[in-house]
Amino acid sequence: MAPQYAPSLRSRLAPLLLILQTGFIIIAALCFENKETNKLDRKSFFHFYPEFQDVNVMMILGFGFLCTFPVRYGFSGSGFNLLVAIIATQWALILNGIDSWYNTNIIRIDLKSIVKAELCAVSALISIGSVLGKTNPVQLTLVALLEVTGFALNEWLLQTLLKVRPPNSIMLLHVFGALFGLMLTWILYRDGSKQGFEKEKFDKKSGLFSMLGAVFLWMFWPSFNSVLVGDDQTRLEAVCSTYLSLAVSAVTAAALAVLSSPRGKFNPIQMQSCILAGGAAVGVSVSVVQQPWEAMALGFTAAILSTLGYRYLKTHLLIAFECHDTCSVLSTHGLPGLLGWLAQLVLQIKYCDDHTVAVRFAVFHICTLFTTVSLSLSMGIITAFLLKWTFWRPQQNKKCFDDQAFWEVFTHKSQRKKKNRNNKTITENHLNFYSVNSMFCVLQFPNLVVRK
Amino acid sequence: MAPQYAPSLRSRLAPLLLILQTGFIIIAALCFENKETNKLDRKSFFHFYPEFQDVNVMMILGFGFLCTFPVRYGFSGSGFNLLVAIIATQWALILNGIDSWYNTNIIRIDLKSIVKAELCAVSALISIGSVLGKTNPVQLTLVALLEVTGFALNEWLLQTLLKVRPPNSIMLLHVFGALFGLMLTWILYRDGSKQGFEKEKFDKKSGLFSMLGAVFLWMFWPSFNSVLVGDDQTRLEAVCSTYLSLAVSAVTAAALAVLSSPRGKFNPIQMQSCILAGGAAVGVSVSVVQQPWEAMALGFTAAILSTLGYRYLKTHLLIAFECHDTCSVLSTHGLPGLLGWLAQLVLQIKYCDDHTVAVRFAVFHICTLFTTVSLSLSMGIITAFLLKWTFWRPQQNKKCFDDQAFWEVFTHKSQRKKKNRNNKTITENHLNFYSVNSMFCVLQFPNLVVRK
Amino acid sequence: MAPQYAPSLRSRLAPLLLILQTGFIIIAALCFENKETNKLDRKSFFHFYPEFQDVNVMMILGFGFLCTFPVRYGFSGSGFNLLVAIIATQWALILNGIDSWYNTNIIRIDLKSIVKAELCAVSALISIGSVLGKTNPVQLTLVALLEVTGFALNEWLLQTLLKVRPPNSIMLLHVFGALFGLMLTWILYRDGSKQGFEKEKFDKKSGLFSMLGAVFLWMFWPSFNSVLVGDDQTRLEAVCSTYLSLAVSAVTAAALAVLSSPRGKFNPIQMQSCILAGGAAVGVSVSVVQQPWEAMALGFTAAILSTLGYRYLKTHLLIAFECHDTCSVLSTHGLPGLLGWLAQLVLQIKYCDDHTVAVRFAVFHICTLFTTVSLSLSMGIITAFLLKWTFWRPQQNKKCFDDQAFWEVFTHKSQRKKKNRNNKTITENHLNFYSVNSMFCVLQFPNLVVRK
Repeated sequence: MAPQYAPSLRSRLAPLLLILQTGFIIIAALCFENKETNKLDRKSFFHFYPEFQDVNVMMILGFGFLCTFPVRYGFSGSGFNLLVAIIATQWALILNGIDSWYNTNIIRIDLKSIVKAELCAVSALISIGSVLGKTNPVQLTLVALLEVTGFALNEWLLQTLLKVRPPNSIMLLHVFGALFGLMLTWILYRDGSKQGFEKEKFDKKSGLFSMLGAVFLWMFWPSFNSVLVGDDQTRLEAVCSTYLSLAVSAVTAAALAVLSSPRGKFNPIQMQSCILAGGAAVGVSVSVVQQPWEAMALGFTAAILSTLGYRYLKTHLLIAFECHDTCSVLSTHGLPGLLGWLAQLVLQIKYCDDHTVAVRFAVFHICTLFTTVSLSLSMGIITAFLLKWTFWRPQQNKKCFDDQAFWEVFTHKSQRKKKNRNNKTITENHLNFYSVNSMFCVLQFPNLVVRK
Repeated sequence: MAPQYAPSLRSRLAPLLLILQTGFIIIAALCFENKETNKLDRKSFFHFYPEFQDVNVMMILGFGFLCTFPVRYGFSGSGFNLLVAIIATQWALILNGIDSWYNTNIIRIDLKSIVKAELCAVSALISIGSVLGKTNPVQLTLVALLEVTGFALNEWLLQTLLKVRPPNSIMLLHVFGALFGLMLTWILYRDGSKQGFEKEKFDKKSGLFSMLGAVFLWMFWPSFNSVLVGDDQTRLEAVCSTYLSLAVSAVTAAALAVLSSPRGKFNPIQMQSCILAGGAAVGVSVSVVQQPWEAMALGFTAAILSTLGYRYLKTHLLIAFECHDTCSVLSTHGLPGLLGWLAQLVLQIKYCDDHTVAVRFAVFHICTLFTTVSLSLSMGIITAFLLKWTFWRPQQNKKCFDDQAFWEVFTHKSQRKKKNRNNKTITENHLNFYSVNSMFCVLQFPNLVVRK
Repeated sequence: MAPQYAPSLRSRLAPLLLILQTGFIIIAALCFENKETNKLDRKSFFHFYPEFQDVNVMMILGFGFLCTFPVRYGFSGSGFNLLVAIIATQWALILNGIDSWYNTNIIRIDLKSIVKAELCAVSALISIGSVLGKTNPVQLTLVALLEVTGFALNEWLLQTLLKVRPPNSIMLLHVFGALFGLMLTWILYRDGSKQGFEKEKFDKKSGLFSMLGAVFLWMFWPSFNSVLVGDDQTRLEAVCSTYLSLAVSAVTAAALAVLSSPRGKFNPIQMQSCILAGGAAVGVSVSVVQQPWEAMALGFTAAILSTLGYRYLKTHLLIAFECHDTCSVLSTHGLPGLLGWLAQLVLQIKYCDDHTVAVRFAVFHICTLFTTVSLSLSMGIITAFLLKWTFWRPQQNKKCFDDQAFWEVFTHKSQRKKKNRNNKTITENHLNFYSVNSMFCVLQFPNLVVRK
């Protein structure tokens, strides 16, 4: 029996990307400007650039390679992450600038605006983790556009109505992204999920690639949390707090992984997601965590929450709610994010001398979370229903977690076998991948036919 | 039949490298100096260092791992890249300093001179991409020496005769390297190239390693283009322009990859080379691209050119001209570089108010390209004829794209099999690689013989 | 025959890590403080941060992935390195602060103190390289604690008694770590070492992962050597010296690798350790190496020493002394470190005008080495005897260099086979790794039993 092919994306993805990109360039021609910066800005360039690059590395390399753990999904995991990241960043650059465009008719492009756009894009990267392997790049592009729109709207609401300061509102990206992703994967549920997809597993090499991604996220998270902090003193504190919190959550995650495993062994994928919990928790509460021990305790709690979420909540979500969270974004970003929100509430109230101010802050803080949660859930549901449309040509269940659906990775050898053995099925275990030069295929196809 | 071994490099490579390195140290002892720097330089150290490291990472890791895609050529791809990079950098450090040595009798070594030397070395790294897999390290070392000599000569000609400013002349490295490499691979053409070498293919893991290299190049390219720009304002613009251009070229490359593939799929190696096109194009025209939309449009065009080059030009070069460009450096660096040169011409003329100045600039600009192209072609041809000499012991056609020709990667198991089964051929599919401790081999060889 | 399992670490590792981490948090709550920093410190933050991150990358990524070369030990190599690194850093943060706590009752946490703690932790990372694959994470945690204690004690002795300046005393970490590690592996000698462990080999993919680690160490070593240097001028010199020394040692290592191999081939693992020799040598002598040629000559000599050590000394250590140094830390860090010490002695005496001062310096310098060597040897022996206690549940010889002893990497398929074939042994060559969601295992186990 001939293998069933995944639907071609030629007539969907190519026009969508070309139209989008042309649109972005036209908008850029009309609005973007490298405005003449003053001397102070130029000086701060040198202070800003290393952290800008760290965030860049986290976004492209960290998140990208974290998604390469499925044994046959490495190209898609890292490639589609890059695609979503750059589309989301460009779109966020435009949306974040609407306000300034309304006032001055130009959108200023500098390192700060790019970093801000990148952080918005990260919320989309978190979401696509939950539907990893079960969506095609057309759907992922739509997620990028709609999620960033939702996130920018949320940010605008928080900053305008609730007077939340920019770094605080942006750092809610962990909560926003995780809940948005959960809704996506809930509505887009596929029947095969409970039995586990055939190719949804890792091997020792694909696990090492995702280890690489996790390690990059872990190392550069201090830059991620401090990059938007304006004040130098707070920035230094943010770096140290995040570092300590990550260190503690890595040790704690290791201890709990051994404790929660029946044979006392580590699970590589669990470790990779749980060691990062401390970073997300401190990120959300970065403006109030001052003492080292607070950051360390936060990291400790976040690792516990994240491990429990990975081991128990994920299973129950799948069985009870038919919600298959591939990268377990809920336990990596969602729960630690909520913990960080709670920590911010508690610490801020503790520091308040005045009772009235404390209550006022609490009300505002709860409203902040409420807005974020409701907006992310509703945008997630709307997006998911849009993606259900078969017009976008989602792959079949058996093509989930399979690079072959989207990448040219078939092979000389298997082709020859197929010809020689009269269309017998290819042994899947010994698939060899095809020559780099696609041209050779073209050259050899006729030969094969002739030879036969 | 016993396998045929690649010729040993012991009597060629070791003396060459030792003589070169001793020579470099002697020259350093006579001329190099860590001259007492003034206060301003020391301050700029901190501004300069992060970008210096980014360029370093691009050169060693980015280009190195980009070359690991052939399934059995990972060690050679990354290892020989490192070797060429450091030899070329040391040689460039000396050649770039001749001018200063002539005047002051010393060659000053600081971060700036090292970065400049590294950029010269990158032109050699581009060239060796086109002969990847088909040359041995002795030949690559010679390429490093001769290409850097040619490039330094070109730079000196441009700066002395045509008064081209340093960053502009150095950025022509993309054009220089690509054409030099094309000449190399044209003259060194091997008969097997048209059928495709046996091992010239990638698999999912080797493709991910080269993805890693491509991603590092993509992320740090803004540093590459801005590192030599002196003025802070222009530097900031260069970073933003390169970032935007790369983002656009990545989206466009994805769209065109799907469009140009008959089944609507991505080709990993094509993607890895085409997403970088925007960086090279902006690099060459960095001094005149000011508005964001110009950079974006440049990235868009570069990605189109690069994709067309990869899909069609590369094939025709091989069939019509017998020129087998392994890493397709023409479409990754050559064409975008020429596009950047054209963009610089057009934009500069557009900005000129005075007609005479514009014509004068055009003439100078065309001379610049003419000098670079003719020098790179002639140096490439000279180098290639030198490399054809069998004294350098090139490997056989069947040892192309094979780490086994240069690296100790044979195995215990296969050795035992060989002995036990009376010298039957080793099944290539189950090759296991040998113990880390080469000593064990020494210990076990006698045992095996005795046992038999 | 059912496979024999490695002993479970549930009852050993989890309590140890949780107690340690809780203890660290309590100490942090009592002593640590993000003290209000003055303006100068804040400014230096921006100068310091990029190098801080580079050291971070070297420690977590560089050393971690350098240890992934054994074909089935990738998760352990990188994962346990992370665990040891963060425990050692936290413990060093506390130990380094005792002095300040004694005087002011607080331990100040800032980037400088974290970097200092990281450098102390690196000495532990070097040591665990020598016992890589032959110890379990409980033992490695103990090594982290005891070695950092020993190193902090050594540093305190050197600084108090011999008035050695901080950067110089810390850079002796190469010598300390290597000798400590040698003692560990000497006392913990396992019978299987001489024949070579079954899984102690690399393949082309695991070798590339360790190439990645080696390359990161190579690229960022200039930051490692310069990060603690206070004076801007010396710092700039340290960066350039280290860069040149590394470049020379890479070329020399390549030449000697070809020369020392009977067939004129490179050994990937040998290359990965010997190209780094120059960094360690310059690191120890960083305060006196001023001229570029001195650094280059040092790199040349270090590469020769390191290659000789790898090819010959390592074998003799194993055969004559039953001391199996997995990562050959003696030739990568030990010998170049000693060379650096010697170079410092020679250069310092050369620069001295006064004979008395020179002799005085020599005596002090020899005492420094003597203290370091004797302390590292004695602490290594004490630690090793503690680790020999079977209470820590070391794995069996056949589980050495095997991720399966500590990580959940078994498989659906093998499970099914086992059931179907009435507990026949699993064919080791085709092990497929199990589904990411450990839950599926739980769900499927009953099914399998029922089906049977």
